Amino acid sequence: MTYSILENYLKSKGDFTNNDVNYITNHFKLKKVKKKEIIIDFNQVSNAFYFVNKGALRIFTINKKGVELTRFFTFENSFCTALPSFIDQKPACEYFQAIEPSELLEITRNDFYKLVDQYSDFDKIYREILERSFINNQKRIYSFQGYAAIDKLKLLLETYPDFLIRVPNNLTASYLGISPSTLSRLKSKL
Amino acid sequence: MTYSILENYLKSKGDFTNNDVNYITNHFKLKKVKKKEIIIDFNQVSNAFYFVNKGALRIFTINKKGVELTRFFTFENSFCTALPSFIDQKPACEYFQAIEPSELLEITRNDFYKLVDQYSDFDKIYREILERSFINNQKRIYSFQGYAAIDKLKLLLETYPDFLIRVPNNLTASYLGISPSTLSRLKSKL
Repeated sequence: MTYSILENYLKSKGDFTNNDVNYITNHFKLKKVKKKEIIIDFNQVSNAFYFVNKGALRIFTINKKGVELTRFFTFENSFCTALPSFIDQKPACEYFQAIEPSELLEITRNDFYKLVDQYSDFDKIYREILERSFINNQKRIYSFQGYAAIDKLKLLLETYPDFLIRVPNNLTASYLGISPSTLSRLKSKL
Repeated sequence: MTYSILENYLKSKGDFTNNDVNYITNHFKLKKVKKKEIIIDFNQVSNAFYFVNKGALRIFTINKKGVELTRFFTFENSFCTALPSFIDQKPACEYFQAIEPSELLEITRNDFYKLVDQYSDFDKIYREILERSFINNQKRIYSFQGYAAIDKLKLLLETYPDFLIRVPNNLTASYLGISPSTLSRLKSKL
């Protein structure tokens, strides 16, 4: 069970033999985290990538006024880390936190980039993560610049249909940059 | 002259022989555009990547109220396109426009991805474009969620020190999501 979701993920994304899959998954180790547990702290440098076996997590920071700003949510069957810090090896200046009890598969940064160099199809997986993130970010930037709140919410539900079921209201509101009461009003209009 | 900036760019980023550099640059063709010229239109699918030899360009869309939203600016010595459309091959739903008379080197999408597959160092250039974009987008998303306007402006000038000299006030304001009058007030505080 530990590696089966990751194994299927790899096989669905690339042309890996069983030996390749075993070799790759052996670089990951299981990490179980509690609800609200912080996996990467504000001042920490991100030295690992995480594959989500089970659970839900978010990336957020806290602005000068003490308000939490949630940048990203992630769920089962996807990779996540504090990516700018992972790339640049500077302190994250953001938090990576579980919002449900979660099961992660952790791979070190060195091993991750080693696999990217070793397997062209693993390189393509990383490229796809970056490309997908870019597309999501583009939509998010336009939405902040001038989308009506209801359109921001619809955009979110297109990408993650069960978002409102799994993520608490206050975090969803923070993600969209609106107040929780505005969010409640919008939900009744969907 | 046509290829010299791109040649230096390639040599600074990767371990290319002179033959490699010639082979790669031969896939690009020169495209001169006028100020305000649209290179990729709203309904068009992006089928090319552009290296900026000279000039300044922006990517923007228009929201339901008819307001222009500028997502990105680009200047000499960098690659740019309507990237989500380039990746997904769906209509851009945004515009790629010159804001100065500009000189571009255009490569087709097929040739670009061919070079990514052929040269691991060209693959790394593409990866770096995606990684840098991700880091910029992360800062921009947080800035929209809860940075003071003056901090947004400072962040912009850290990344592009001569931004305010080259980009008109109304476009800079649109990029930051603030009014032109707020921008003028902030500039006096820098």
